[in-house]
Amino acid sequence: MTLDNIKEEIEKASHIVILTHESPDGDAIGSSLAMYNALKQTNKKIDVIIPECPEIYSFLTSYDEIKKEENEDTKYDLAIALDCGDIKRLDGFAKYFEDAKVTINIDHHSSNTMFADFNFVNPDAPACCQILIVVLEFLGVTITKEIGECLLTGIITDTGGFKFAGTSRETFEFTSWLLGIGVNVSEVYRRVLEIKTKGNFALTRIAMDRLEFLEDGKIAFTYITKEDEEKVNAKTGDHEGLVDLGRTVEGVEVSILLREADGFFKGSLRSNEYVNVSDVCMMFNGGGHARAAGCSIHAPLQEAKERLINEAKKHLR
Amino acid sequence: MTLDNIKEEIEKASHIVILTHESPDGDAIGSSLAMYNALKQTNKKIDVIIPECPEIYSFLTSYDEIKKEENEDTKYDLAIALDCGDIKRLDGFAKYFEDAKVTINIDHHSSNTMFADFNFVNPDAPACCQILIVVLEFLGVTITKEIGECLLTGIITDTGGFKFAGTSRETFEFTSWLLGIGVNVSEVYRRVLEIKTKGNFALTRIAMDRLEFLEDGKIAFTYITKEDEEKVNAKTGDHEGLVDLGRTVEGVEVSILLREADGFFKGSLRSNEYVNVSDVCMMFNGGGHARAAGCSIHAPLQEAKERLINEAKKHLR
Repeated sequence: MTLDNIKEEIEKASHIVILTHESPDGDAIGSSLAMYNALKQTNKKIDVIIPECPEIYSFLTSYDEIKKEENEDTKYDLAIALDCGDIKRLDGFAKYFEDAKVTINIDHHSSNTMFADFNFVNPDAPACCQILIVVLEFLGVTITKEIGECLLTGIITDTGGFKFAGTSRETFEFTSWLLGIGVNVSEVYRRVLEIKTKGNFALTRIAMDRLEFLEDGKIAFTYITKEDEEKVNAKTGDHEGLVDLGRTVEGVEVSILLREADGFFKGSLRSNEYVNVSDVCMMFNGGGHARAAGCSIHAPLQEAKERLINEAKKHLR
Repeated sequence: MTLDNIKEEIEKASHIVILTHESPDGDAIGSSLAMYNALKQTNKKIDVIIPECPEIYSFLTSYDEIKKEENEDTKYDLAIALDCGDIKRLDGFAKYFEDAKVTINIDHHSSNTMFADFNFVNPDAPACCQILIVVLEFLGVTITKEIGECLLTGIITDTGGFKFAGTSRETFEFTSWLLGIGVNVSEVYRRVLEIKTKGNFALTRIAMDRLEFLEDGKIAFTYITKEDEEKVNAKTGDHEGLVDLGRTVEGVEVSILLREADGFFKGSLRSNEYVNVSDVCMMFNGGGHARAAGCSIHAPLQEAKERLINEAKKHLR
C-alpha cells in the first residue's frame, strides 16, 4: 500500500524537502506547513521551500521558517510534493525533486501526472490538506492545534469556505473536531478568505468595472493587465478571487479571468453547474478540476479572450 | 421540561399557526418551513403566515403554501413563533398569536422577551434552525431531505456560511449528517448566500467605485443614491452586503454606507474588532448591535457623511 511506502521512506530519510506548486494558495501553503510542522516532531532535518509566499498566511506556525531558496547543490534523501499536479508546476524547484533519492507526491488534482516514486493522489478530496488528515494519522502524527490551523487553511481555501460541491462529510466532521481541540475556525476563516489586501481591493475594483456578460449572461468575462498590477502595487496573491466576481451573478455559468503574465495571458475559469472547465482549458494545454481550471494562452488580450469564449460557449446549454 | 410541554401542546392542537419576524431572513423562513413541513407529517391543519417572503427561498419545499394573509377572525389552538425575539416583531400578525389558546416561542436571540406560554430560547445557538434540530428530534419528527434543506437555509444564513464565531461543533456535525441523507449543501449555500442579483451586482459596482478610505484607512465610506437604484432597476434587498465591501479590506475598522431614502439618508455601519457602532448610531437616534448598527440622518449627502465620520472617528484607536 502506498501509505506504507510513504511511512517507510519518511522513517528512513534524514534530510527531507517539502515542495509545492508555483503561485501557492492556501492549500499549497497549508499542506506544506502542516507536513513541515508534523515532521518537525521527529529529529529529522526538514526544509520547506516556497519562493513567493503570500503574507496573509503569516499567522500559520513556522511560516517564518519557509525558505525562499536553497543551495543548488543540496541533495535530499526525500522530496515530498504537496498539492501539485505536475512536476512542471514545481517551478524552479523541480531540481530538488529530481535530484532527491526518493520522491513522494501527495495531491488531489484529477489531472495529476503521477510523477513521483510514490503517488498518493485522491481526486475526490476537496483539498490536499484533507488528504493529509489521513496521511498524518497513518504516520502516527498528533494533529496539534497548530497543525490543525494549517490543514484548515487549505480546506477553507479549496472549498471556498465549505461552499464548493466537493466539500464532503469528512470536511465538516474534521472541522467540528478542530473546534473541539480549540482551533478558532472563525478567525482562520476571516484571515484566509475574508480579509482583502489593499492591492486585492484595487484589482477587484478594476476587474468589476471591466466585467462583461456574454452569451445571454451565461459567460462573465474580465481581465487584469501587468500595468494594472503595477499601478496598484499588487503583490503575490492579490488577484485571488477576481474570477469569482462574475461567477456569483445570477444566470452566469462560466466565469473567465484573463491575467497578463510575461508575454502571455493566464486564463482562470470557474463554472457553477454543468460546464466542465477543465475540458475547456485542456484545449489550451491547461487543466484542473471540473468547476475550476486554468490555462495559458500565448496571444494578445483580444485574441485570447475570443479563443477562450469560443471554446467555453460550445459547452453551454 | 419545556420540550415536554411543547410536545404535549402540539399533540393536543388541531389548528396551528406558525409565525416569524418581519423582514424575514433565511433563518426566519427556514425555521418556519421546517416546522411547517414537520407538522404536515401529522393530520393537523397548519398555517404558516409570512407577508413578504423573498423569492430566493422559493426552492424550499412548501414555499408556495406560505400564506400572505389570513382571515382576521381565525382563532388557532396553538401559535408557534420562530426566530422572533419580541412579540412586536411579529408585525401585523401578533393578533393571531395573542388570540391563540396556547403559544410557543422558539428562538435564539439573547434579547428574547419570553412572550409566550412556553419559551424554548437558546442564545448560544447560532440559528433558530439549529435549535429546531433538537426540537424536531424530541417531537419524533423524521428530518427528511426537504426539512433538512429548510434547516440548512437558516443555519447558512445566520452563520454567514459557517463563518461567524457562533458556528458550533453541532453546526458542522449536522451539516455532515445532511450530506449523508442527500442534501445538496453546496447548492443550498449557493442559492442562499452566493447568487447575486443583477441589481445587486450593478449597485456593488457603483459602491465599489465610490469607496473611500479615511482616517488612515480605518474608516471605509461609500454611498448609494435613489437615482442609482432607479438607474439599475434595483429591487428590495439589492443593497444587501454593500456595507461589507469596505469592512473586509485590511486595516478597516469601521465601514459606513449611506443610502438615500425619501428625503433622508439611511446609515449602515459595521465594525471589525473594537468600535461599538451601536454607540455611534445612537448619537443619531439609531442603534443595533456592537458590530452592526444603523441610523437615519436628515441632511444632504455631504453633511450626513461628515457627521457620521466625525462621530465614528472619536471611537478609533
